[in-house]
Amino acid sequence: MTVSVPADVLSRLKAVLGEDGWSQDPARLAPKLLEWRDRWTGETPLLALPRTTKDVAAIIGICCESGTPVTTQGGNTGLVGGQIPMGEVLLSTERMRAIRETDTFDDVLVAEAGVTLAGVHEAAAAVRRRFPLGLASEGSATIGGVVSTNAGGTQVLRYGMTRSLVLGLEAVLPNGEVWNGLKHLRKDNTGYDLKQLLIGAEGTLGVVTAASLKLYPVMASRAVAMIGLASPQEALKLLVRAKDETGGAVEAFELMGRLGVDFALRNIAGTRDPLAEIHPWYVLAEFSSGEPGSAEASMERFLAAGLEHGLIQDAVVAQTDAQAKALWAIRENQSPAQKPEGATWKHDISVPVSRVAEFLDQATAAMQAFRPGARIAAFGHMGDGNIHYDVLRPDGGSDAEHAAKRDAGARIVHDLVASMGGSISAEHGLGSMKTEEARRYKSSVEIEALSAIRRAIDPKRIMNPRVLF
Amino acid sequence: MTVSVPADVLSRLKAVLGEDGWSQDPARLAPKLLEWRDRWTGETPLLALPRTTKDVAAIIGICCESGTPVTTQGGNTGLVGGQIPMGEVLLSTERMRAIRETDTFDDVLVAEAGVTLAGVHEAAAAVRRRFPLGLASEGSATIGGVVSTNAGGTQVLRYGMTRSLVLGLEAVLPNGEVWNGLKHLRKDNTGYDLKQLLIGAEGTLGVVTAASLKLYPVMASRAVAMIGLASPQEALKLLVRAKDETGGAVEAFELMGRLGVDFALRNIAGTRDPLAEIHPWYVLAEFSSGEPGSAEASMERFLAAGLEHGLIQDAVVAQTDAQAKALWAIRENQSPAQKPEGATWKHDISVPVSRVAEFLDQATAAMQAFRPGARIAAFGHMGDGNIHYDVLRPDGGSDAEHAAKRDAGARIVHDLVASMGGSISAEHGLGSMKTEEARRYKSSVEIEALSAIRRAIDPKRIMNPRVLF
Repeated sequence: MTVSVPADVLSRLKAVLGEDGWSQDPARLAPKLLEWRDRWTGETPLLALPRTTKDVAAIIGICCESGTPVTTQGGNTGLVGGQIPMGEVLLSTERMRAIRETDTFDDVLVAEAGVTLAGVHEAAAAVRRRFPLGLASEGSATIGGVVSTNAGGTQVLRYGMTRSLVLGLEAVLPNGEVWNGLKHLRKDNTGYDLKQLLIGAEGTLGVVTAASLKLYPVMASRAVAMIGLASPQEALKLLVRAKDETGGAVEAFELMGRLGVDFALRNIAGTRDPLAEIHPWYVLAEFSSGEPGSAEASMERFLAAGLEHGLIQDAVVAQTDAQAKALWAIRENQSPAQKPEGATWKHDISVPVSRVAEFLDQATAAMQAFRPGARIAAFGHMGDGNIHYDVLRPDGGSDAEHAAKRDAGARIVHDLVASMGGSISAEHGLGSMKTEEARRYKSSVEIEALSAIRRAIDPKRIMNPRVLF
Repeated sequence: MTVSVPADVLSRLKAVLGEDGWSQDPARLAPKLLEWRDRWTGETPLLALPRTTKDVAAIIGICCESGTPVTTQGGNTGLVGGQIPMGEVLLSTERMRAIRETDTFDDVLVAEAGVTLAGVHEAAAAVRRRFPLGLASEGSATIGGVVSTNAGGTQVLRYGMTRSLVLGLEAVLPNGEVWNGLKHLRKDNTGYDLKQLLIGAEGTLGVVTAASLKLYPVMASRAVAMIGLASPQEALKLLVRAKDETGGAVEAFELMGRLGVDFALRNIAGTRDPLAEIHPWYVLAEFSSGEPGSAEASMERFLAAGLEHGLIQDAVVAQTDAQAKALWAIRENQSPAQKPEGATWKHDISVPVSRVAEFLDQATAAMQAFRPGARIAAFGHMGDGNIHYDVLRPDGGSDAEHAAKRDAGARIVHDLVASMGGSISAEHGLGSMKTEEARRYKSSVEIEALSAIRRAIDPKRIMNPRVLF
């Protein structure tokens, strides 16, 4: 799809943005038009680089009046293509990088859309607080993108997704008006919660320009363990025990199959096998507490009980920060370690936590039937029922052949997920990649309601027109 | 406002509901038409008593087709009149009382709209779990109402409002269609989050018929203390320390002025002064942890540091459950203890936590000027910045005179709240009482967006037409 934007609209946009506020230079545009997994290459008549919320309002005002479609992009780390324009004006938040405020009484940090997640972590640490959202891409992912996609990550089990971590938003709505909802309030029951609608809307209901984020205390104790176990069934039982043992103080409970650990050993320099023997499955568990020594004590009890009940084959507890980091690196490298292995079908799915083991069994049986020899690297946030179910081409097979079967493979996985009451996009969103696929699984009642809301807020459908309903 | 509903519509509704599914008996209707603070008395042509979601869909379908307005009521514990019909059909959820499911792997409980909050607590305890939402009215308040008003309560500081505790909803939309969003999923990023829109919508976007609720682990240790202190400034500093000391494991941090404690001593049988001397302000703090002994240890360190830094005048830690209950009773009786004292203006407001002390100072100065002799009983959820700022008539004054000045008094309080970036309804919603007032403080950008959403979902405005925008 190409959109042609009239020259006079482009001129007006340029005039509003000023000389250094836009670009049409192909070299400048190139990195913003390429999705990082190389799956989409976009095009745009103009890269808009607003510096302020007022600039954004002016741009969207012109786009609204002229019916010009516009796609917003943050750190370009999205995994479903939602940030790549296909002919629309491209609005980048890269120059909106101020941390406007931190307040340790309110435990609030106000960041503009273009601040990276790592930047927020740093600013929080500087006032001895924590923003508990962790993503592999946090050095590039921006707050605007994190909010607009309701990002998840490794700490959702305890702190929830981005949706739970936002106290207020500032946004430019599709009519070009600025909504200032940048509150510091923990409670405000005065009508529909507009910010909840914008969170996860993938840029279709406006441009998020700034967010008030919740800060949390720094923890006094932390325990990280890598656990070897026979199957995901044991992992499920362990998860229930971990929550019980800690009163919900589980920071992370991440599952990995052995194949993914093998990939890390083979393809990521410096990786060491975490346990003396090889185990079919691994869980990386992290507990933390405000009470010194408490996380370590809980972990010790938890592992002892797990061994006693035959749920655990072996385990190691990190004794130093460096050891904890090394254990986490194995988990965080699960995706990068696949790259040298050739073409992959990636599925970001969730099922009820109780059905993760069943899903893994059935999905793997289905994949073995559909694509004999395919290598399954399943890993992810067991505690949230969210598995990154990746299917790699057979060893030595053809990348092109594997890619050609991707959509049919995804259909099998997604149908299974749907039959279990799951979601075909647990944390990545729908974007360009999954919007049409999602129509297959949502009820017409829901799609009609979501579409009606969109028509109400963006009647000309100018905001990220390709994504969502 | 009276709505006249045509006889044929009433007949069709009765036919759908069956013989025992409706009532027009004034005695049966009376308790549902009277708001419990006696502020509103409603009227209705018909009380509908559906048993199933299908019944609800049939009723709403007829109402939609005929343009008949309908108000939904749960336990009739709302504080802003949103549940009292003024001529609309009254849909009560009292017969929808099934707990459809509990799952301790998913940590989910599915309750129908008419189940009371206390009923959910019991069902959770039966499977050794907890649903951490606590309201004084939990014996009557229903899940449908709790969800529709995004109820708050005493544990918001740690667990969030109802919005954070819901995994999925089933609802009948204003067009009479059933939306089945009763998921067990912790993560699902597939378009706008319709459940977040229904939560807190006060029944204007449909009838919530069931909810999937998040369950939490039972805690191994708990410490409850009553602290005497000089002023809310000290309370604020203590709050920051409490969060830091426990790594966020503060279950409650409730502030009360001495006058409210006096009212409890005078008017609530069995109340004892919690500390040997009289203090201007009190904080009831509760910590809990999954680690045995951890909450008590944190509390001890916290109180010792508070005394050392001169923030605390005196404190007592409950040594038994009975003592903890007695301390909590003082807090929970703050509102009931006012009743014998005569007419009260009640304000459920929030400000940024950092500004609670400043708000209390300024509001009290303003009230003393506007209403000399008025007695201020301020109490509430300091940890959330949510104060129930109640202004009682002067000792021995006239109730009627006080009531006559209520709206003018509220205006002063609300203007002050707004000037501090606060909310005029922190946890009660807007209902009939505050909808018009809220228009004064919301931007036209926001009101227009909220109205557009409502028109999109309920174009005939049949659902709770008097409330919200």
